[in-house]
Amino acid sequence: MPKRVDHEERRREIATAVLRLVTTRGVEAASLRAVASEAGVSMGAVQHYFTTKDEMLHFALAYGNTLLAERATRLMAEQKPTTPRETFRLLCTLLLPLDEDSRAGARLWAGLISRGCVDEPTRKLAALAYANLTGFVVRQFSDALPDADAAQPARHLVSVIEGLRWPVLFGVYSEQQAMDVLDAQLDLIF
Amino acid sequence: MPKRVDHEERRREIATAVLRLVTTRGVEAASLRAVASEAGVSMGAVQHYFTTKDEMLHFALAYGNTLLAERATRLMAEQKPTTPRETFRLLCTLLLPLDEDSRAGARLWAGLISRGCVDEPTRKLAALAYANLTGFVVRQFSDALPDADAAQPARHLVSVIEGLRWPVLFGVYSEQQAMDVLDAQLDLIF
Repeated sequence: MPKRVDHEERRREIATAVLRLVTTRGVEAASLRAVASEAGVSMGAVQHYFTTKDEMLHFALAYGNTLLAERATRLMAEQKPTTPRETFRLLCTLLLPLDEDSRAGARLWAGLISRGCVDEPTRKLAALAYANLTGFVVRQFSDALPDADAAQPARHLVSVIEGLRWPVLFGVYSEQQAMDVLDAQLDLIF
Repeated sequence: MPKRVDHEERRREIATAVLRLVTTRGVEAASLRAVASEAGVSMGAVQHYFTTKDEMLHFALAYGNTLLAERATRLMAEQKPTTPRETFRLLCTLLLPLDEDSRAGARLWAGLISRGCVDEPTRKLAALAYANLTGFVVRQFSDALPDADAAQPARHLVSVIEGLRWPVLFGVYSEQQAMDVLDAQLDLIF
């Protein structure tokens, strides 16, 4: 009797293997074959769930975002921020590569930016991710600061967070230096 | 009689081929073989000048920075900024992907960030580039604003510029929106 396979669970296992490969060996290394080997499944199994490498990468990114949202929810419950500024500080900190999870996320993101420069489906995906992140910040700002024009400060905050990632990841800016920049940015808004 | 080869000229030709390949097909595509083909020289000729792919990429990045410095000097001579703020605005604009040259530079940079996540020599190179850029901004700030603490605002400005690159390159933020963010950042400093 064939074993009942939980399809969503299997897709997540494969996505986890993609994330591991991308963050240790780079986005170019995440071929269907390498992912099958990393996940301990057959090429056919990977191809059953993902027709192309792009489809697989896109699912892995979405899965990475789900994990990020879960971490955000957990952190908010633990630290219970009481002002919009504290909430924003917490959420922005999650995007900075200050622990192993967020460093892995930054490495995945670096791979997608790089691939987005030469591959149109990935450019669209990266563009959508930037638009979504900016839109999320705009909505939060609109709630916290109803009278302000939210779009321009949202783009400013997103840029600062994005731009801090690489000098922090590469060890050029310390965690404290990054938080000082973030605080200066939040001072500008709140 | 063998033709006299200008070695520096030949290295620059190869670096130009690297930049072309990286910006059209990505950093992974810039193998010694592909570069030789793109430059119209033999593999042996490329290997005569560069022992490894890393060495070749590092020279291409340095050459890209030289081209950028030349563009900066030219633009300063044309536009003759009269205040530190105008000068900074001009220099920051050069780093944003608003024309074909700076888009090519951003694509090269994306490739190096991505490779720097999984390759130690490239990480060191990228770290050095961020440290140099930040140091350059600190020195300019120290001249323009002698009484201010220059390091933190320099890191803030570098982050904003770096973070604006990708949403601009991917068509999420318009040129005007990017310049509005840059102006808000300069308002904070000057």
